[in-house]
Parts: sequence; C-alpha cells; structure tokens
Amino acid sequence: MESDEQKLREVHSTWITAVNAGDLVRLLTLMADDVVFLNPGRAPCGRDGFSANFSARPQQVQIRCNSDLEEVVVVGEVAYTWSRDTLSVAPRAGGKAVQFAGHRITVYRKQPDGGWLLARDAHTLTPVEN
Amino acid sequence: MESDEQKLREVHSTWITAVNAGDLVRLLTLMADDVVFLNPGRAPCGRDGFSANFSARPQQVQIRCNSDLEEVVVVGEVAYTWSRDTLSVAPRAGGKAVQFAGHRITVYRKQPDGGWLLARDAHTLTPVEN
Repeated sequence: MESDEQKLREVHSTWITAVNAGDLVRLLTLMADDVVFLNPGRAPCGRDGFSANFSARPQQVQIRCNSDLEEVVVVGEVAYTWSRDTLSVAPRAGGKAVQFAGHRITVYRKQPDGGWLLARDAHTLTPVEN
Repeated sequence: MESDEQKLREVHSTWITAVNAGDLVRLLTLMADDVVFLNPGRAPCGRDGFSANFSARPQQVQIRCNSDLEEVVVVGEVAYTWSRDTLSVAPRAGGKAVQFAGHRITVYRKQPDGGWLLARDAHTLTPVEN
C-alpha cells in the first residue's frame, strides 16, 4: 500500500506535469475548494483567480516548470512540502527564455478517500539572470 | 490554560516585536535548530544565514514590520500560519521609506515543554509603490 509520502510525491509530480501541459482541469482536481496561492507582487488568489491567471497565459509562450522536493512532512491529516522550483518562459517562435527561480512551501490536506489536496501555497519565484 | 492557537499568536507577535526592536537574541530563541527561511530572490537560509542578514541591517535605517495573521492551523505537534505582512525601511535621517508588502506561510513545531518554534518560513514580500 502506498504511503502518504508516496501519494504526496505523486500529487506534486502530477501538478508540475499538468502545469507544463497547460491542463487546468487536472490542476483544479488537485486543489481544495478554499485553496490559497500566495505569489510575490500579486494579491493572494483562490481557485477562480488561479484559473483566470492560468488561462490568461499567452499562446505564444512555452512554459516549462521544474520542481524538486526538498522535504515532505506528513502530520496526520495535514502535510507540508518544501520544493525548489525553476520556471522558464520561452517564446514559441524562438528567442531568449525568461528564467525564474525560487522555492515553494505547500500545505496539503488529506481527504476522506485517502487522497491529498493542495490547500495553501506560497512561492518565492523571481526572475534570474541567464 | 492557554490554547496552542493562543501560544502561536503570542510567538507570532513576539517575533514581529523582536524584528522591529532589532533583537536577534530573542529571534534565535523562537526558531528551531534546523529552521529554513525562503525569501524571494535569495538563497534559503538557516539560523546562521538569518543572523548574518539580520545583523547586516544598516544602522542608518529604521525597519518597521507589521504582520496580521490570516490563519492559524494547529495539527497535533505541527502548526502553520498564513500572515499578511508589510515592511517599511526608512532612513533614520529622514527621507522617503521603501515599502514592501506580501504574505508569509510559517510552519511551527511544538516542543516538549509545550512551546512552539518556527521551523519553516516562506514569504512573498516585494517592493510596492507608495
């Protein structure tokens, strides 16, 4: 049987794959109803704000996110992860990509079915020279 | 008897007071040995890095931090808080202060004596126009 840590690592991996695939429908299945995302320089947002921002990504850019888990801590029905993230935003037509780097703390809540949903997320990603 | 939530609110309040007072010794008593601070645009740091950064604050500036707790969640031996923060950095000689605003997710761990120590902290503070 899968441990909670294994399940959380899968949710994390599924999340990043869905971000890179532009799969908002999948992402929405991974968040709690009252999810809160905290981003540098922007107001906190929930499901609706996340959806609006995610859908507003221009078609002309290719987004590539990588995220390595530094830590997964499970405490009963709640867990938190710390990850080291990079994000590359590249024009599909070619040209220089803009790179972002930072970290993320994410809080997850266990569900009655044993699955885990993302509940709180704060990241520190900022542009880096490349 | 004080609840864990009350204790956490006090630790949070004590933290901000110590930041504004430049009281590094007090701050160090509130962090776990393996504490990790995640900051936009900077490498993660622990006790030593925090101490070095905190001590390097120029004497010529007055720092004023405000932090309002949006949420305090206790789950057994672990807790997390979400706070809305502002930071003002003003020259003591007068002149315009630089303002930062953002949010913070902090993870605390309960100690054997019933107290709580700060273990993980990610903030999104960035400069704002004022």
